[in-house]
Amino acid sequence: MSHMIKAGLVGVTGYTGMELARLMVHHSSMELVRVTSRAEAGKRLADIYPFLHRLPLGELVITRPDPADLAEECDVVFLAVPHKTAMEIAATLLEQGVKVVDLSADFRLNDKSVYEHWYATEHTRAGLLPEAVYGLPELYLDQIMGARLIANPGCYPTSAILGLAPALKAGIVETGDIVIDAKSGASGAGRGAKVGTLFCEVADSFRAYGLPNHRHTPEIEQEISKIAGTGITVSFNTHLLPIDRGILSTIYTRLKGSTSIEEVHDIFTEFYSDKPLVRVLPKGLLPETRHVRGTVFCDIGLVVDQRTNRLVILSAIDNLCRGASGQALMNANLVCGLDIDEGLPMAPMMP
Amino acid sequence: MSHMIKAGLVGVTGYTGMELARLMVHHSSMELVRVTSRAEAGKRLADIYPFLHRLPLGELVITRPDPADLAEECDVVFLAVPHKTAMEIAATLLEQGVKVVDLSADFRLNDKSVYEHWYATEHTRAGLLPEAVYGLPELYLDQIMGARLIANPGCYPTSAILGLAPALKAGIVETGDIVIDAKSGASGAGRGAKVGTLFCEVADSFRAYGLPNHRHTPEIEQEISKIAGTGITVSFNTHLLPIDRGILSTIYTRLKGSTSIEEVHDIFTEFYSDKPLVRVLPKGLLPETRHVRGTVFCDIGLVVDQRTNRLVILSAIDNLCRGASGQALMNANLVCGLDIDEGLPMAPMMP
Amino acid sequence: MSHMIKAGLVGVTGYTGMELARLMVHHSSMELVRVTSRAEAGKRLADIYPFLHRLPLGELVITRPDPADLAEECDVVFLAVPHKTAMEIAATLLEQGVKVVDLSADFRLNDKSVYEHWYATEHTRAGLLPEAVYGLPELYLDQIMGARLIANPGCYPTSAILGLAPALKAGIVETGDIVIDAKSGASGAGRGAKVGTLFCEVADSFRAYGLPNHRHTPEIEQEISKIAGTGITVSFNTHLLPIDRGILSTIYTRLKGSTSIEEVHDIFTEFYSDKPLVRVLPKGLLPETRHVRGTVFCDIGLVVDQRTNRLVILSAIDNLCRGASGQALMNANLVCGLDIDEGLPMAPMMP
Amino acid sequence: MSHMIKAGLVGVTGYTGMELARLMVHHSSMELVRVTSRAEAGKRLADIYPFLHRLPLGELVITRPDPADLAEECDVVFLAVPHKTAMEIAATLLEQGVKVVDLSADFRLNDKSVYEHWYATEHTRAGLLPEAVYGLPELYLDQIMGARLIANPGCYPTSAILGLAPALKAGIVETGDIVIDAKSGASGAGRGAKVGTLFCEVADSFRAYGLPNHRHTPEIEQEISKIAGTGITVSFNTHLLPIDRGILSTIYTRLKGSTSIEEVHDIFTEFYSDKPLVRVLPKGLLPETRHVRGTVFCDIGLVVDQRTNRLVILSAIDNLCRGASGQALMNANLVCGLDIDEGLPMAPMMP
Repeated sequence: MSHMIKAGLVGVTGYTGMELARLMVHHSSMELVRVTSRAEAGKRLADIYPFLHRLPLGELVITRPDPADLAEECDVVFLAVPHKTAMEIAATLLEQGVKVVDLSADFRLNDKSVYEHWYATEHTRAGLLPEAVYGLPELYLDQIMGARLIANPGCYPTSAILGLAPALKAGIVETGDIVIDAKSGASGAGRGAKVGTLFCEVADSFRAYGLPNHRHTPEIEQEISKIAGTGITVSFNTHLLPIDRGILSTIYTRLKGSTSIEEVHDIFTEFYSDKPLVRVLPKGLLPETRHVRGTVFCDIGLVVDQRTNRLVILSAIDNLCRGASGQALMNANLVCGLDIDEGLPMAPMMP
Repeated sequence: MSHMIKAGLVGVTGYTGMELARLMVHHSSMELVRVTSRAEAGKRLADIYPFLHRLPLGELVITRPDPADLAEECDVVFLAVPHKTAMEIAATLLEQGVKVVDLSADFRLNDKSVYEHWYATEHTRAGLLPEAVYGLPELYLDQIMGARLIANPGCYPTSAILGLAPALKAGIVETGDIVIDAKSGASGAGRGAKVGTLFCEVADSFRAYGLPNHRHTPEIEQEISKIAGTGITVSFNTHLLPIDRGILSTIYTRLKGSTSIEEVHDIFTEFYSDKPLVRVLPKGLLPETRHVRGTVFCDIGLVVDQRTNRLVILSAIDNLCRGASGQALMNANLVCGLDIDEGLPMAPMMP
Repeated sequence: MSHMIKAGLVGVTGYTGMELARLMVHHSSMELVRVTSRAEAGKRLADIYPFLHRLPLGELVITRPDPADLAEECDVVFLAVPHKTAMEIAATLLEQGVKVVDLSADFRLNDKSVYEHWYATEHTRAGLLPEAVYGLPELYLDQIMGARLIANPGCYPTSAILGLAPALKAGIVETGDIVIDAKSGASGAGRGAKVGTLFCEVADSFRAYGLPNHRHTPEIEQEISKIAGTGITVSFNTHLLPIDRGILSTIYTRLKGSTSIEEVHDIFTEFYSDKPLVRVLPKGLLPETRHVRGTVFCDIGLVVDQRTNRLVILSAIDNLCRGASGQALMNANLVCGLDIDEGLPMAPMMP
Repeated sequence: MSHMIKAGLVGVTGYTGMELARLMVHHSSMELVRVTSRAEAGKRLADIYPFLHRLPLGELVITRPDPADLAEECDVVFLAVPHKTAMEIAATLLEQGVKVVDLSADFRLNDKSVYEHWYATEHTRAGLLPEAVYGLPELYLDQIMGARLIANPGCYPTSAILGLAPALKAGIVETGDIVIDAKSGASGAGRGAKVGTLFCEVADSFRAYGLPNHRHTPEIEQEISKIAGTGITVSFNTHLLPIDRGILSTIYTRLKGSTSIEEVHDIFTEFYSDKPLVRVLPKGLLPETRHVRGTVFCDIGLVVDQRTNRLVILSAIDNLCRGASGQALMNANLVCGLDIDEGLPMAPMMP
C-alpha cells in the first residue's frame, strides 16, 4: 500500500464528517491521515465515534484545522464545514497545491450575486468560482477528473437534477411547469443540538419546512437550465421524514406531446446506460429510500399519468452518502485518478 | 344515562374498527352495544384489544354480523368492512330502519359507472346512491343532519378536499393545474397480514405507491368539481410514511392573478370561520401530522411562492381519526342530533 | 362551570408541561389559569404549542413565574421545573396557602441525607419533607387527599413500585435478589437541546444508560422497603427506547417457595381489585407500552419461570402520563376533592 | 477470479437470505452461484430484491432447491430455511460432499432429546450431531476450520454467550444467579406476513414476548455450561424493539468476591485480545445497537454495581449479521480456508 492517496477531512463531528469516516474504513487506495475539529482536537476518532473502536481509523488523532499541516500531509482535502467557513479554507488549501472537495454550498453557484442573494452573505472568494467544477459526475465527469476544486452538490439538488436531466435533455417536458416535492431524512438537518430535531419532535410525525425559499432552489435551477438550454424556474418544496437517511423527490412535469411510458423509459435508460450509479428502475417499479441506504446509487422510477399527461419522476438517494460524503468520495476518486466507485459500498442496508 | 344512543359496529378487527372502539370509550351520549366480526365472535372486546381491559367497553361480547339483531338493538350502525361487502349490509340495515354510516367507498361516488370503473366491480345497490350523503360536514352539514345513509369520506380525499375547497370556491386558482402530493401513515394500509407493511419493510424508509391510479382520485375530483362548478382532473399521488397515523397532503396550485398570502389567508380563514374543526394556521406556520394525532382536526398551512405564482396548500389530518372513524363519529353525532364534536378528543397526542 | 378549580403550571415548555396542557384540555372541573415560563412569557400557549390552536386553552398567555400571582389566582399549582428549583417555589407557594404538586424529585425522599447524596446538592427546604406525601395513589390514597404538598413520583419508580408492591406485601419473593431492567421512551430525557437525544442518535438504535447509579434508585428502595417492612437494595438499570412515550420495567424476583402462577396472579388481582387504574393482565398476556400510551394505566403482566423459580413482573406505563403529568393530575384531583380519574383519558392511542 | 469459491443459498426470501445476499455483493473470494426458493424460482434476484438492480448478483436466477445441482455447482451451501426442513437438506448435501453452514437450530443442540423437547419435533438426522460444530468462532475456531457441517448459532445465544464467556471462564460470577434480559429488533421475527409484526403493531411500542420458554434457552445453557464446567440454568427473557436490526442483551450476574471493574475489564480484554470481532469497550462506555449495525462486531460493555455486588454485562450485536448471516459467512470463510472477516463490512451504518 505504498501508494495510498492521503486525504484530510476538515470538520469531522457532523453527520457528513461521520459518513466520510464510515466510508473511508473500506477504501483500499485512499486513507484518511488528518481529521480536524476545533472542539474535539486531541481525542482519537474512536473516542468520539465508538463504532470505530478496534479499527485502525479509530486510532487517528483529531487535530485542530491547520491549512499548512493539511497541505503538507494530504493529497486531497474534504471540507465538511458550514458555508462561508469553507470558502476561506478552500482558498488557502488551493494556494498550497492541495485538491479540495468542498461539501458546502460555497462554490456551487456560478454567479456570485445569486449566491449572495440566497445565502445572505458576501462571497469573498468569488475569484475561484470559474474554476470550481460542480461535482455531479453523471454530468461533468471529464471536468471533475481535471479539477482541483470540486463544489460537491447539495443533497436535494443531486436527486432533483439526476431525476430531471434525461427528460430535459430530450426536451419532452414543459420547462415552465416543474414542481419538486422533496422529502428528506433527519440527518439532513445536521448534528447540531436543536429542539426541532430531537427524537420526540421528529418521530412519528411528518411536516414540510422551509417553504417557499429553500436555498437549494438556485442550485437546481442553475443546473437544469444548463441542461435544457433555457432558464427554468421551479417550485421546490421540502419535507422532513422520520428516518435517519434518505431523500425521495417526487418531480411533477408536464409532457409536451403524448410520449408513452415506453418512450420515456427508453430515454432515461439510454441517458444513464454508461452511468451505472444511477439505476433507472424497470417500468412499474418505484424507488424506496432503503434501497439506496448507505450507497451512492440514485434510483429513478417513472410514471406517465395519461389522464393529466404528466410525467412523474421519482428519484431516491441517501442524503448523507450520494447526497454528501459518498459523492464527495466519488469526486475525490476521480480527481485522484481512481475509479469513481472505489471504496464505495454497492449493497444498501436492507432491511 | 337513560337516553344513550345505541350504536353498532360491523367489522371491529381492522384499524378503523379499533379506532372507533377507542373513541367510543369517552362518548357520554352514545354507546357501542354491538360489535361484530365473523372471525372473533364470542370473544370479549378486551380479549382482542387488551387496551380495553378493565373498561366497560372491554366486556362487550363480539357477535357475528346479523342485520336483524343490529337493527333491533341499534339506532345507528357503522360499517367498517371492505367495499362491496358494505353495500349489501347497508341496504339491509336501511330497510330495517337503522341509520348507517358506511366507512367504505361504496356510496361515495355519485355515478355508478365511475364507481364500477375505478373499483372494477358491479354496484348492486346503486338505487341508494341518490340519497347517500357525502359525509364531509364542512361541506354538507345540513344534508348530513337529515340523512339516513352517510358515505364517510376517504382519508386522502378528506385532506385534499378540505385543503382545496376555499381556494376553488373563491376561484383564485387555475382548475387545470392541480397536483396533490399526499403522504400517509401505515395504518392506512389496513391491518391485514402482508409482507409489504411489516415493520421491517416500512420503518426507516419512504416510498411512493399506487401511482398513477389511486382509487381516491375520482372521489376527490367529484367533490372539488362541485365546489369549483367545473370538471376538474387532478394529478393525485400517494406515498407511505413510516408513522402509524397521519396524512399530509401538499397541494400545488397556480394562482390566477397575483393574490397575496394575506388575501389567501383571509379567504381560508373566512371559509372556515364557523367550522372550528378545521384550523387554518397563522401565516408562516406549517402543519405537522402529530399536531392532529388522534383528533378530527384538519390543519391547513398556506404558502404563496411568488417566484412561480403558485399557492401551496398543506393539509394535515389523522388518517384513522378525521380520515375514517373520527369523521364517522362526527357524522353519527349529527345524524343522531348530537353536537358534531361530542365524545371526540380535541387534544392530540403530543409528543 | 362556576366552581371550576383553578390550577397553575410552573414550567410549561418541557414535555411534562406540554403533557399537562394536553390533559387539561378535557378536564371539566379544573382549568389552567396560569402557565409560566421565563423564556416564553408574553406568548399565547398556542404560539408555542400549535396543537392548541383554536382551543380555549391556546389563548392563555404565558407569564413569568410569580408566586404571589400564582397564589392569588390558583387553588393548586403544578411544578414542572428541575429539582432544586422546585423546592424554593414550593415553599413560597405553601406559605401563601396554595396546594402544590411537585413533579421534581425534591420532596420524594424522606431522608434529607439520601437526597443530598444522590442529587449532590443541599436540600434547603428539608423542613417540608415530613409533610410531603409521596403521590402514588395506590399506596397513599388517604394521605394524598389530605395533603397540601405532593411529591409526585418519578416515572421509573412508579412502574417499579406498582409492579413489586403486591409481591412484597404478600412476602412471596426474596427481598435480597431483585433486579429491575427498565426501558424508557425518549421523552423521559426531556426537551432540552442535546446531541444525545437528536432523532438520528436515538432512532433505529437501543442502548443502556446511567448504569449503575440512576437517581431513581433510592426512591424505589425507599418505597418498596416500606412495603416489605425491611430494607431492600435493588439493582436498577435503565435503557433508552426509540419511542416517544412508554416505560416497560422487567422485574426479576426469586420466589421464596413454589408459588404457582395462579397464586401469584390472585395475589396481584386482589391487591389491585379496588384500584382500577392498575390493570393486572390475564395470565399469559404481557403488557405493551402502546396499550397505556397517553393514559394513567399501569399494566402488569406476570410470569413464573419454574426452571429458575423466578417471578418475572412486567410493568408498563406511559412515562409522561402516569409517570409524570397524568399522575400529577390524579393527585391534584384528590387534593381538590375530585374523583381520581376526572379529566383523564382512559383509551390509549392505538395504534 | 479463477479461484472464486462457489456458494449456494437455500432459502433466499427471508431476512437472513436477504442479508446473505447483501453481504455477498462485496466478497472478493466467494460468489453466490445458486440461490433457491420454491416460491420465486425463475425470477432474477433483482426481481425480488430491487436493491440489487444493476449489480451482477442481481442477474442470478433463482432456482428450485435441488441438492444434486447444489452439490455439483457449490463448494459450500448456506441453509436459510426453517428448522426441521434444514436437517434433511443438510444430510443430503453432506452425502454429496458439499460443506454446509446451517442457519437453523437443527444441529446446535448436542443432545437429541433436548432438541426434541424444546422444538417439539423428532430429530431425524441425529447421527450428524456429533460432527456438527457450533459456529461461534471465538470459542471453536479450530473445529470450525476443519468442519464440514456448521451449526450457525442463534442470534440471542451469540450475544449472550459472547457476553458471559470471559466471566464464566474466569470463574468470577455465581453460576446459579444469571438473568439475561434480551431485546431484539423486528427482523428477528422473520419476514412472514403476520399481524403481530406489522409496522403499526411494532412501531412506537415495546413489549416482552415468549416468556419464560424461548427456544434459545437450551442453546445458551449448553454453551455456557461447557465454558463454566458446570451445568447452568439461566433466566432468559426476550423483548421486541421497534428497530430493524440489533440485539442488546443486558446480563445480570452476581460476583463471587469483590472483583473491581478494573479487574473485570482486564479479564474481558484479555479473553478477546486476539479476537478482534468482539470489542470490549473502554470502561464507562456502553454498547449501542447502531454501533454494530450491519457488521459482525459484538460490542461488550461492563458495569460493576458495588451496592449489589453485581456484574452487569451489556452485549450488542446485529441480529441479522453477527446473529445470523454475517456469522454464517465468517464460518464459511473459515471452512473454505479464507480469513474470517473476508468480505465483511467493518463500518456500521451510522447514523
